[in-house]
Amino acid sequence: MLRSMTRAACIIIGDEILSGKIRDTNIHLIIDLLREGGVTLCRIVTLGDDPADIAEEIARCSARYDYVFTSGGLGPTHDDRTIEGIARGFDRPVVHHPELERLVRGYWGTRVNEAALKMAEVPEGATLLESADNLFPVVLFRNVFILPGVPQLFAAKLQRVRQEISGTHGTLRSIYLSSDETSIAAALAQIEREIAGIKIGSYPRIGDPDCRVQVTVEGPVSDDVHHAVQRLLEVIPRDYILRVE
Amino acid sequence: MLRSMTRAACIIIGDEILSGKIRDTNIHLIIDLLREGGVTLCRIVTLGDDPADIAEEIARCSARYDYVFTSGGLGPTHDDRTIEGIARGFDRPVVHHPELERLVRGYWGTRVNEAALKMAEVPEGATLLESADNLFPVVLFRNVFILPGVPQLFAAKLQRVRQEISGTHGTLRSIYLSSDETSIAAALAQIEREIAGIKIGSYPRIGDPDCRVQVTVEGPVSDDVHHAVQRLLEVIPRDYILRVE
Repeated sequence: MLRSMTRAACIIIGDEILSGKIRDTNIHLIIDLLREGGVTLCRIVTLGDDPADIAEEIARCSARYDYVFTSGGLGPTHDDRTIEGIARGFDRPVVHHPELERLVRGYWGTRVNEAALKMAEVPEGATLLESADNLFPVVLFRNVFILPGVPQLFAAKLQRVRQEISGTHGTLRSIYLSSDETSIAAALAQIEREIAGIKIGSYPRIGDPDCRVQVTVEGPVSDDVHHAVQRLLEVIPRDYILRVE
Repeated sequence: MLRSMTRAACIIIGDEILSGKIRDTNIHLIIDLLREGGVTLCRIVTLGDDPADIAEEIARCSARYDYVFTSGGLGPTHDDRTIEGIARGFDRPVVHHPELERLVRGYWGTRVNEAALKMAEVPEGATLLESADNLFPVVLFRNVFILPGVPQLFAAKLQRVRQEISGTHGTLRSIYLSSDETSIAAALAQIEREIAGIKIGSYPRIGDPDCRVQVTVEGPVSDDVHHAVQRLLEVIPRDYILRVE
């Protein structure tokens, strides 16, 4: 990874994803959001509904990365344990946030019960970001954005998160080759060592009639990336090169 | 998670997945394989091509779970660093496996070079499982199955892995409800406490015209699961219940 960039981690929470009952799609939205925002995603962890596992992972990620995003485990039922896990990870109590409690009571009215009020819980010290869907705010605790797992709600909240994050946009270029990876491996390693701050990737494309390997060059400084592409075009045999993008 | 079952973790490796250049699909194959095999998947971690990150995660997962599966980072180029990471995680040197070296030399013939021979590298002490595709064996180090990231190769190797793993099959049933989650949260928590070894999940279905919440009951002992479903049908108001599967 390009260590100079703003860095993030995501934690996807829910037994139903690990068991295959539900296929997570939220991660693709956040991958796209971070790439567009110039933030480097360094780690994705999918965990079950176990507060001890959540606590351990959230503490590690919050300390190591600029931003952490969680998805899932925020509802009213006994298997929604993300708030408890995050609070435990930072050794803080779970409390009712007065503004969330006001919203929950306003929404449920006389039907409000203990389960509904569970949705007003936050780790003590959490702040609220007014929500894009005008219904329920995004909960932010330190550098952790706490998002719901239901895809429609996750997507709505992410619109609000977009305004809060900022990173450095990088440049990405690709070279498509007719050779296999072994023939160009030494050249890729050499150029990556030669030009500081760039990252070269190599991806075989099995069954693609147009190309055998896609080589990518990326980095935070556009001139460095273009320079690396030039150097690669010098050292890779010309008849291997199909096209450059 | 159901702690009594055989437990597994997966580590998906590759900068290209974190940056969104490639969307990982291997995880869905392994989720299905483990569910069908009665193995509980407890953790999925997606990491970049950083041997230190890989080392840390592999050591943790290998110690905690019965099986660990890695996907990606096995090719001939400088960004393929899974073997180095796993070796470092167990404090073992990277060596050429004689049988893999024989296969690599047989395949590349006089074109063999340092990059190609990188594919004969294993953490010292690794064993080989003869491959389903008759080309390249699956590398197994202790309880870690080391699999390639290219989807076609990953799927082929997984056929071989299937023969090696064994777990306990569980039972899964579902109750579909017309109520929201807050109305039934207390009942779900009560029945989960009442019947040891079962796990009750609750999943809101926004935009589904047929159902507002799906409640799942699962566990290793089929009688316990059916008993829990009966108890739920007793405590949940009858007019909330749409159907039971």
